Amino acid sequence: MALIVQKYGGSSVADAEKIKSVARRIVETKEGGNEVVVVVSAMGDTTDELIQLARQVNPKPQERELDVLLSTGEIVSSTILAMALHNLGYKAVSLSGAQAGIETDAIYSKARILRLEPKRVIEELEKGNIVIVAGFQGITKGMDITTLGRGGSDTTAVALAATLKAQICQIYTDVEGVFTADPRLVPEARKLKEIGYEEMLELATLGAKVMHSRAVELGEVYNMPILVASSFSDKSGTIIHGGIMMEVRNKVRGIAHDLNVAKVTVVGVPDQPGIASAIFEPLVKANISVDTIVQNASINNITDLTFTVARGDLDNAMSLVQPIAKSIGARKCVSDSTLAKVSIIGTGMQNTPGYAANMFRTLYEQGINIQLITTSEIRITCIVGEDRVEDAVKALHKAFELERDVI
Amino acid sequence: MALIVQKYGGSSVADAEKIKSVARRIVETKEGGNEVVVVVSAMGDTTDELIQLARQVNPKPQERELDVLLSTGEIVSSTILAMALHNLGYKAVSLSGAQAGIETDAIYSKARILRLEPKRVIEELEKGNIVIVAGFQGITKGMDITTLGRGGSDTTAVALAATLKAQICQIYTDVEGVFTADPRLVPEARKLKEIGYEEMLELATLGAKVMHSRAVELGEVYNMPILVASSFSDKSGTIIHGGIMMEVRNKVRGIAHDLNVAKVTVVGVPDQPGIASAIFEPLVKANISVDTIVQNASINNITDLTFTVARGDLDNAMSLVQPIAKSIGARKCVSDSTLAKVSIIGTGMQNTPGYAANMFRTLYEQGINIQLITTSEIRITCIVGEDRVEDAVKALHKAFELERDVI
Repeated sequence: MALIVQKYGGSSVADAEKIKSVARRIVETKEGGNEVVVVVSAMGDTTDELIQLARQVNPKPQERELDVLLSTGEIVSSTILAMALHNLGYKAVSLSGAQAGIETDAIYSKARILRLEPKRVIEELEKGNIVIVAGFQGITKGMDITTLGRGGSDTTAVALAATLKAQICQIYTDVEGVFTADPRLVPEARKLKEIGYEEMLELATLGAKVMHSRAVELGEVYNMPILVASSFSDKSGTIIHGGIMMEVRNKVRGIAHDLNVAKVTVVGVPDQPGIASAIFEPLVKANISVDTIVQNASINNITDLTFTVARGDLDNAMSLVQPIAKSIGARKCVSDSTLAKVSIIGTGMQNTPGYAANMFRTLYEQGINIQLITTSEIRITCIVGEDRVEDAVKALHKAFELERDVI
Repeated sequence: MALIVQKYGGSSVADAEKIKSVARRIVETKEGGNEVVVVVSAMGDTTDELIQLARQVNPKPQERELDVLLSTGEIVSSTILAMALHNLGYKAVSLSGAQAGIETDAIYSKARILRLEPKRVIEELEKGNIVIVAGFQGITKGMDITTLGRGGSDTTAVALAATLKAQICQIYTDVEGVFTADPRLVPEARKLKEIGYEEMLELATLGAKVMHSRAVELGEVYNMPILVASSFSDKSGTIIHGGIMMEVRNKVRGIAHDLNVAKVTVVGVPDQPGIASAIFEPLVKANISVDTIVQNASINNITDLTFTVARGDLDNAMSLVQPIAKSIGARKCVSDSTLAKVSIIGTGMQNTPGYAANMFRTLYEQGINIQLITTSEIRITCIVGEDRVEDAVKALHKAFELERDVI
């Protein structure tokens, strides 16, 4: 008998009818001869509603209390799902994160799992129960409730799957899987049957918001296969796993894009040691995440330093960087918030120059100006004007023949 | 420094504004130089809404799951109240029933407290926190969430007050205290400054729905003074305590009434051993609570047996009793669901026949027919037609001079 861990997101359990439908899916898996552990998110907009309620009494609620408050959302959905399963005649039991043995550190609102001792989960499985675990939450050694931050329920699911040595961790959500590009931009975009963990990470962090990178990383560490599929259809999803690198070597897997990009350029910076740290340390302290950093080759010991931040951080970043630029003798500071990232992602591209060249040529042929370029082992990213990002994604999807299912 | 336990009911914390106002009251108590432990109910109609949600997926939700579900209501209100206190600049921490050390049996939906070890409550008080405890809930030895059933939050508050040796347990609710009669019926009804535990118990079980008898009983066992007052006004409430019996001996304290009364009479019952048990055992098994039982003196070994039940149980009771009546050779079975109870309550009446006589004379003078009479040590109850209950309460209130504050 195989053990399968399933996770259902907030939109999949948004109301009683949807929960009943999720219950029927779980029963199918159980009837397939499997043991089933289910992780649920809070119903629909519950989490946002609870945050709104908190803000009505305190504009900046203490995180310890907020975590306790938010954790109730997943408790509610877990009990309702258990009741729906009872109504279908199946044995089921809901467990909180604490009861499922998820011990975390005390970093409220973004706690990390320290230990997972799912003794109670195993006991309940042995009693023949379908076990429903409230996602997104854990408990500290001091018995205080924590939440795991963004992507928390995915993390709960993968962590449980890894610890319980499940056959697979199935993430059911409101998308059908991982696509070669955003289907809203590229009608020919194709759903991938499978993808590697690292490729998925690059796709996820670059805007293909299917699941949170933290859970994918955990899957990679424990080599736990993860299925991403829709809870609203029976179509097969995408399997994220580690065994496909050989077959797909040197192949672009998908095109990611991200509109949340703003650029800051410090013009005319004296090229001397300590300048970069003088500029970036204050940003780190202000909790501003700096993404791409590019420093042009220096001419006469004068260089330009460019970096990108999320658009919401631009004003803050500029107000921090401008006085520094002045103090280090830079000429000026300019910004642009009308940019976007477009990336091609695939294992092994780094050692195969053809991919970069193909990407740049394709953009050139479309008359799209490339403002910045960065690369990782499995990704090439160009920063372009946001008004051209759709053209860029479409052209790249075609250039790399992603509409064809070639392994 | 005195320790005060306060409890705020659902209507007192129904929305963010009301919670802010409760926070200001708590701060006043804290600023009065006290340590404060607060027990809260769920906000407004939360509990009913959660039950409705559960019924949408399962008409008869399993009690274990229902308890977990309902316990979230009090968790939410406890965190929001803690946040509101933070916003006023005060240290506060919310604790679940489990964190507060409330261990119960595993009788879901009506668990009884087995042990209370408020180690964490004491630690948090020592740190200078106002401690907010989620009412109505506990945890079993096996770490499953339970709820304490009706009046549960009052019970949590009195139990905590007793264990922590608080100076007083203050129950804040939507009434101003305990009145000599229902002020809607008797405009002259007077709020009592104080009342004994047993008198309060009789008033509470007979329809003066101020607080649940279970919490009053607990208060009596631990001799914990309980203040009942309104959270919406600054008027002084009623103190329930054990030290006033001497002064108020032989004094009627209040008039209670209850409209939820139906009567069953088995006519022409052979007066022989075993008849009563033949009639009542099936009712007990069907979970029908039989209240007043009266058996007339038998004439020629034939008697009439009359008892009352809640109106909602009448049909069920009749269908159980009719075949039994037939089998034991009774003449017939009749019922009346248009009845009401009216009671006078006060310590020491039993040994002072004047009170009973005064009650019967008053009702006679009003032309009110008494159908049944029962008494306890501190109560005399008459069953009358529901159409005359208002007249009865008014006349008795006047006859016993309850509008006057005499000790």
